[in-house]
Parts: sequence; C-alpha cells; structure tokens
Amino acid sequence: MQNLTATLLVSCPDQPGIVAQIAQFIYQNQGNIIHADQHTDFSSGLFLNRVEWQLDNFRLSRPELLCAWARLAEQLQATWQIHFSDQLPRLALWVSKQDHCLLDILWRWRSGELRCEIPLIISNHPDLKPIADQFGIDFHCLPITKENKLAQETAELALLKQYQIDLVVLAKYLQILTTDFVGKFPNIINIHHSFLPAFPGANPYHRAHERGVKIIGATAHYATAQLDEGPIIEQDVVRVSHRDNVEDLIRKGRDLERVVLARAVRLHLQHRILVYDNRTVVFA
Amino acid sequence: MQNLTATLLVSCPDQPGIVAQIAQFIYQNQGNIIHADQHTDFSSGLFLNRVEWQLDNFRLSRPELLCAWARLAEQLQATWQIHFSDQLPRLALWVSKQDHCLLDILWRWRSGELRCEIPLIISNHPDLKPIADQFGIDFHCLPITKENKLAQETAELALLKQYQIDLVVLAKYLQILTTDFVGKFPNIINIHHSFLPAFPGANPYHRAHERGVKIIGATAHYATAQLDEGPIIEQDVVRVSHRDNVEDLIRKGRDLERVVLARAVRLHLQHRILVYDNRTVVFA
Amino acid sequence: MQNLTATLLVSCPDQPGIVAQIAQFIYQNQGNIIHADQHTDFSSGLFLNRVEWQLDNFRLSRPELLCAWARLAEQLQATWQIHFSDQLPRLALWVSKQDHCLLDILWRWRSGELRCEIPLIISNHPDLKPIADQFGIDFHCLPITKENKLAQETAELALLKQYQIDLVVLAKYLQILTTDFVGKFPNIINIHHSFLPAFPGANPYHRAHERGVKIIGATAHYATAQLDEGPIIEQDVVRVSHRDNVEDLIRKGRDLERVVLARAVRLHLQHRILVYDNRTVVFA
Amino acid sequence: MQNLTATLLVSCPDQPGIVAQIAQFIYQNQGNIIHADQHTDFSSGLFLNRVEWQLDNFRLSRPELLCAWARLAEQLQATWQIHFSDQLPRLALWVSKQDHCLLDILWRWRSGELRCEIPLIISNHPDLKPIADQFGIDFHCLPITKENKLAQETAELALLKQYQIDLVVLAKYLQILTTDFVGKFPNIINIHHSFLPAFPGANPYHRAHERGVKIIGATAHYATAQLDEGPIIEQDVVRVSHRDNVEDLIRKGRDLERVVLARAVRLHLQHRILVYDNRTVVFA
Repeated sequence: MQNLTATLLVSCPDQPGIVAQIAQFIYQNQGNIIHADQHTDFSSGLFLNRVEWQLDNFRLSRPELLCAWARLAEQLQATWQIHFSDQLPRLALWVSKQDHCLLDILWRWRSGELRCEIPLIISNHPDLKPIADQFGIDFHCLPITKENKLAQETAELALLKQYQIDLVVLAKYLQILTTDFVGKFPNIINIHHSFLPAFPGANPYHRAHERGVKIIGATAHYATAQLDEGPIIEQDVVRVSHRDNVEDLIRKGRDLERVVLARAVRLHLQHRILVYDNRTVVFA
Repeated sequence: MQNLTATLLVSCPDQPGIVAQIAQFIYQNQGNIIHADQHTDFSSGLFLNRVEWQLDNFRLSRPELLCAWARLAEQLQATWQIHFSDQLPRLALWVSKQDHCLLDILWRWRSGELRCEIPLIISNHPDLKPIADQFGIDFHCLPITKENKLAQETAELALLKQYQIDLVVLAKYLQILTTDFVGKFPNIINIHHSFLPAFPGANPYHRAHERGVKIIGATAHYATAQLDEGPIIEQDVVRVSHRDNVEDLIRKGRDLERVVLARAVRLHLQHRILVYDNRTVVFA
Repeated sequence: MQNLTATLLVSCPDQPGIVAQIAQFIYQNQGNIIHADQHTDFSSGLFLNRVEWQLDNFRLSRPELLCAWARLAEQLQATWQIHFSDQLPRLALWVSKQDHCLLDILWRWRSGELRCEIPLIISNHPDLKPIADQFGIDFHCLPITKENKLAQETAELALLKQYQIDLVVLAKYLQILTTDFVGKFPNIINIHHSFLPAFPGANPYHRAHERGVKIIGATAHYATAQLDEGPIIEQDVVRVSHRDNVEDLIRKGRDLERVVLARAVRLHLQHRILVYDNRTVVFA
Repeated sequence: MQNLTATLLVSCPDQPGIVAQIAQFIYQNQGNIIHADQHTDFSSGLFLNRVEWQLDNFRLSRPELLCAWARLAEQLQATWQIHFSDQLPRLALWVSKQDHCLLDILWRWRSGELRCEIPLIISNHPDLKPIADQFGIDFHCLPITKENKLAQETAELALLKQYQIDLVVLAKYLQILTTDFVGKFPNIINIHHSFLPAFPGANPYHRAHERGVKIIGATAHYATAQLDEGPIIEQDVVRVSHRDNVEDLIRKGRDLERVVLARAVRLHLQHRILVYDNRTVVFA
C-alpha cells in the first residue's frame, strides 16, 4: 500500500449521484480506489467525502487531473483539496519550555509513524534548542513580550513562508496567537490540556483539581481566533481520584497530551479531516 | 431519515471500478445514497461494501431491483444481501435464569433503540416466563438434558421456522449448541462474559479473579461450531482491582454484558456487519 | 462478609496518632477491622478516614459505642457518622417521564446490588406510575408549576419525613430544587447528562453536538443550591463521532447515565463517600 | 511531602488488632502516617498493608527501627519490607532493538517521574548504545545464542551484582530468561504486548489481528519461570477495527506498552505492590 496515491477531500451540497460521479471520474481514468468514506450532514444538507486511489495506471497527469477534476467540482459546487502521497507535508513545531509533546512527535516522526518533513522548530524560549540540534532541525527562538508580539508574529510568518510550512503544530507553545496571525495561516493544530469545553484558558489542571472532577482530558483542535474554541479533532481522558494532587494531574495529563496531539497530527497528515461549521469530520 | 431505504451489503474480489458501478447502478435508477462505507482487505484481495439509499423516487420495484442487481452482482462475483427498512427483522431471545441481558434488550426494544420484532423467547428454565408475559411475548420452555438435547434442538428449529425468526440472540443462554444446529441456523449472536480469547469456556470471572487480571471484558460474537471462537462483533472492558472479589467481577461484568450484547444486536439489525474469514467488518 | 458490621466515616484536622487511636479504640473493644482507608489532604490539613469492622464479638452495645466514640471524636475535633450494616438506608426516587434510570436502579435493587429500602417514588408527571406499581412502591405525583413550586416542595419534604427517607436520588427528575429545599434535605444525588463542568444546565447533548466534541459524559453529584456545581461523585464517558447526531448522543448518553448514577448510589449506600470543600473522597 | 519517609509493606495472617498494633508502633515512636492502605483477602485469610510515615521526629534510628519492627513482625508472623525514601532503587533496563519503551522510561526518569537510579542498560544487540551514551548510562551488549545463553546469564547476574541493581525492567528485551535466572534475581518487570492471558507467547499482534478482536492490550507483570504467567501489575487496552492491519496494531500497541510499563515501574519504585498467590495487590 506504499503505492503512489492521490487523496481527494471534498465537501459540497448534497444531491443524488455525487458518489457515482466521483467514482466514475476515477474509474474511467483507471484509478483504483483503496479508501472511500463519506458523510452527509442532513441538518445542513452538506455532503463530505474522502477518496484515495492508486495512481499507478492513472491515465491523467497531475495537471490534467487537477484540471479535469476542477470542472466536475464546479458542477458540484464543491470545495476540495487533492494531495499526492509523494509530496510530504512540511511541519513546523512551536514549543515553549516543556519537552514531552515535542519529543513524542519527533520520536514518532523518526520511527516512521508521521509521514512529513519537519524542517523548523520555533520557540519563545531557548531551552529546547539542544533537542532541535540532536534531530538536525533548525531552531528559531523568538521571545514574546506584550510589546513585540506583532513584530514577532510577522517574523514567524516569514519563517513559515521561507520554510514552506504546511502545518503548524503548537506542541505546548502556551502563547495566544493574534486573530490576524490565525487569519493568515490557517493550518494550526493546538493541544489544550483539558477536556474542552471544560476548563478553557489557563491552568486547567489546577481548576480540575479544585472542581474535584473524576476524569481529566486533553483536546487537540485547530486554532482559531477564539481561544480554545476551534474545531475539535481528537480528545481523550484518564481517571483521577482524590489521591491525585495537582502534580499528579499534570503528570497524568502529559501522557494524554502526547497521544492526543500525535493522533491529531497523524490524521491531518493523512488528509483525513474535513472542517465545516466549526466541527470536524474525521475519516479515520 | 425515517424514509424508506434499501441497504446493500456486498463482498467480492477487489478490482477497479466497483464503487463506480454500484454507485452508478443506484444513481441511474434515481436512488439517493445516504450512507456508504467500504473496506478493502489487501491481504485477501476482498472488497466489502455497505450502501444505503432512499427509495422514495427509486425507479425500480423491489423485484426489479433484486433482478437487476443480481445481474451486476454476478459480473462482480459478489455475495450480497439487500434489506428494506420497512421489513423488520424478527428476533428470538434465548435465555436461562439470568434476566439482565433479557431485560436490557426488551427495554431497548420498547424504547425504540432496536428496530425489530421480538415474537419469541426460548429458555431451558421456566424462571423468566413472567418477564415474557409482561412484554406480551410467547415463551417456550425447553429444558435441556444430555439425553434430549438433539430432540430439543429439533423442536427449537421448528419454533424458529414457525415464528419466521431471522436472528437468534443468546442472552445468557449458557448452553452449548450442537454443530448441526449452528449449521442449520446461521444468524446467532452470543454474549460471552470474558474478553475473548482470554478465558473461553466456563467460569470466566472465577478464572479472571484467580489470574489476577486488572481488566475484565465481555465479547459479543456470532456463534459457530467451535465454542467461543466465532467472529467477534463487539467487545468492551472495565477495570478491576485486588479489592474486587469474584462477586464484584460478576456484578461489574453484568453491566458490560448488557451494553456489549445490545450494541452487537443493534449493529446486526441495522445490517452493518459483514463476516469473512471468521472476522467481522463493522460499518458503524 | 455478610456479618454485622459498623462503618465509621470521619474527618478531622490531621495530627500524628489518629490512625493508632481509632484502630486502638476498635481493637480494645474486640472489633475486627475488615476495611480501612484514609486520605490526608495536605493543602487543607484534613484527615479523612473510613473504617469498617465486624460487630460479632464487639464488647460495646450500640449506644455504648456511640457514646464512647463521641468522646474520642471530641478530642480529635472530628465530624463523623457511624452506620450499622443491618440498618438499611431508605431511598426515594424522583423521576419525570424518562424511565431508563428508574428501571435500572429498581432492577439493581431487586437483584441485590443496592442494599437499601425504596418505599417512595415522587414525580412531577403520572407517566411512570405503572412501574412503581409493578415494583410495589408508593408513587406520589406532584406536578410543578412556577406558581406551586414552593408549596409542592413543602409537600415533598413532608413525604420524605413521613417515609423516613435518608437519600433522595434524582433519576432524571429534570426540575431545579430551591436553595431552601436543598438546605433542608442534604442527601440528594443527581445525574447530569454531561461531563461536568462542560455543558452545565439545559440541553447538554444538543450543545455537545453543536460543539463537535469527540467524547460525551455523564456526572453524578450531590445536589447543592448552585445548579450542577455540587460535589462530583462519579463520571464516565463514551466516544462519539461525526456520524452521531443528537439522537445518537442521547441514546449513548442513556447508557452512561444509568451506570454512573447506579455507581454513585451504590457508593453512597455503602458509606464510601466523604464530602469536604465541595469535593468528594471516594473510598472505593 | 518530599520529607524523608519510611514505607512498610507487610503481609501476615489476618487477626484482630493488626492495624492498631502497627499504627501504635509508629505513633509511639512519633512517626506521622501520611499514607496507609490495607487489604484483607478473606479466602486466604491474608492481611496486606502499606504504611508510609514521616521520619522527621521519629525517635528510632534506622537500625533501631528495623530491630524493633522485626520483633513485632515475628509476633504477627509477617513477611515484610521497609524502604527509606532517600535510598533510591537502582534499576537496570534490558532491551533489544526497539527503542520506544527505553526512551519513554529514560524520559520519565529525567523529568522526575521515576525516582530511581539507572546505572545500567543490557542488550542482546548493539543498536541502542547511542541512546545509552546520550543519557550517560553504561551499556553492555551480551548477544544471546542457544549455545551461550547460560554463560551470558551468568555474566548478566554478575553485572546486576556489580551495579547493585534492585530492579530489572525488560523494556522489550524479547528473550526468555531461564528458570534459574528468575530464581536468582526476583525483581523483574516485563512488558507483554497483549492483554494477557490472551495471546501469550510470540507475535501477539499478528494473532490478535487474525482473531479479529476489537480491542488490544498490553500487560506489565513480574517475570516468573512460566513465561507470561507471572503476577500482573498493570494492563490497559485500546480499540481497534477492521481498518487496522497488523502494522496499525503494532503502532497502537507501542503507545500502550510505553504507558503500561511506565505505570508498573513507578508503582514498584514507590513500593506500592505486594505479591501473593501469583497476584498483586496494588496500593495505588
């Protein structure tokens, strides 16, 4: 299954015959579908679809494919993306001082779990530079203050452009991005250390302990202008009890944060997520 | 979505164009697909598919549909089933003395969670007849001994035929069916009170306690001639500790058994399960 | 272990020697401890303890025990309860129109999972009276309007007194109790159909669906004047996906509500819960 | 709570007054108990206890404590251990070629989650030496063949002695130890990549896939002469579906292996585990 494939993510108004038309389009050009999943949201009348097919005997070149598909997409009034499996997404990791999410993603990347390139790490602190060095990744330290935030974001945007980054992963970056930044760079995944919408904002473990919950969680979501209100990609939870103090919650939470963020990044890299109406459809 | 629908379950050798042909078949007859899911098992080269579409404007009558589809299916070398949403499957519950799975399924049935008819309860003990009476369901008591087992199974098969039963649910029946019986009536779902393949056979909770496991489970599977080795439909687990004695395991396990069996029955009634190679594909 | 036992729940300022003094008190009166669990909250300096011992050879009568213990408790500045295993707590179930939590608790009660008496069901609707009749439990229907709320609560308090109720279980009662009522009757367990503090208040499943969460939950807590803010006893969760509409969330949630409420009630009936600082210590 | 503490783990025949005698022993010597947990196995009549107390004002020196306790223990016919919080257990990691469990434990160790010393890594392959170097840990490569197994185990025992190792952690070592070795060095924790007792032995993920289970697991246990039959310390599970092939199971399983092994090692290092009758009591 390491063959060359194309993956189409498409959403359009629901109407009879969409599946037939898309499948026909691929079949008549001699593509062999290896994964197809769809969802219809009946309340909004939206049809969402992921199709992946082998390109081995495909009769269209990539430009021809894009051109031919665009014509069909226009008829369907569809928004869409097409990704080719030999074009690895380029990922930038943004961190602060905590290393657990960073190390976890780097380890999964090196072990082959995450198919992408990681050319860039950005941090507001110099602490994790040795890890970047160890993995041979460029590390840029851009400390943030109230005064320099906008200027630093401009510099960060320039770095994202320079390194041709497709996806920013906030691996415990712990800084709020401006609305302007989020508007200019749409593909940002954040890990929040609570079971959203419980405990948005700062210090969720302290507040979870104070509230006396019996389960804590972590949430990976796309960053939007509204803090902690972006489309949720993945969540997971773990039991706690009265024996767990705040430090225990933080420790147990780290394990959650690592796996939840890693799962979300992997789903995105495999082009399995469609966003609509501040929600995600995950074709897992 | 309470519209009249047809559901096609199909498995056939994988080849390019299957999705297109099936979708085209439905579309050109003016069916609107509301659910489609597929799976390709690359090791065995098998393609498996579930498609559900609305029949409101469908141009073919049911006999015409079956006839037309059968021709396409033959080309695809497919095995298949087609179900119509207004034909409720008929279910028989087989029980012994424990009432928790029986009551749970009957409650879900009455509350509308399980779309089926339940005209028949069979038991080897008279104990649960009052429950059958309360729900207005015929109750047949067929006590099993070593001597009469084959004769009773013949009587049971006759009852299944008489009541036109599509699915037998062993809701803690606790008797082993003969290979002959299983061969004659294929649609049987059993609940086993362990996390199979751990602790097959008798007294799984006692053996789980003795082994000192930290998690116990329950498994819903199709019954086959080999005891507890049929295709697994659904499993779930719950944590236990050294504080839990065998009675606690039995109590905690009852909650598992109820939900795991109910989920499996619901999936079957919605025609979401395909079996191949002693495994299930569950289009949930 | 069905022997006659006494259970002491105690909380007091932490100091050296508490365990020794309590254990010594029981031992010198020839009680055999069969369960002991303790917790020290170091931030508040509070010591919390549950001890259960066999009364078979205990040298003190119950009045003597209470009297002798009270003297020691005064030295320890302790608040405490002592419960005897042959005095079954008396439970009132409050319901509205939904039957799943009611039926579940009644089934567990009849099967011996819940050691208590259930002499009273109160509802603001007549719908579930047949279930009360079937289990031989008195059913009182007290419809609530804005105008009669206070008067009806007075009538309800009178019923709780008349039936000598120790614990009220709001099994989907769906009405808010006044601060006055909660102040007058402290032992009330409520089931909320969300993973609190996410989605407090009305329509949590609708809001969970709108927010696009990947996991939903249920929470059993003691009722306090602040709606949905009382001490949490138990929580559990289940995964959902984009395929689940609101009706699916409600259906999946029902299973959660049943088990979470049942676990909380069982823990309370076994005197395993201590409340302090709007949190619970659960000696499970 | 980073004060100096002593932890007593004790098991003895159950009889009245044990808790009182142990608590009294600590109290009269001015120890302040900060954690106490106990369990009585009524079927075997065994009492098991963990007590941890602060040594700040304790009146006995360590030799005096051991001497005085030994006398009481003899009366109670107890087997016991006493550990002091400033004596860090010394841990040896045994690995093969897979790095995920090794890296995970080393990361937790460096971040302070695991209070121990790790002076030694043993492997039958040289592959992971760079990781040992990076963390400044001695690495000994002892390749195993059928012929040299006994000789190598002798060398390994010598290393364990030389490095004064208290606990061996088989972090995916993938070699079977001889009965002789296990008899000579009792504290060995192994991680098995299945939900034991399902799929003991080799290739559990392949066999889980073949069996079509819907949940896979991992098990941390003490190694005994019988392969995969030692006392279970911790288990956890994750859902899988027909979409997961063997590689997916291996990938998902790695996450389980890491956390399950780490939890077991942490519990052991905190002296929270008592073994009896091939089972564990975990005072978590």
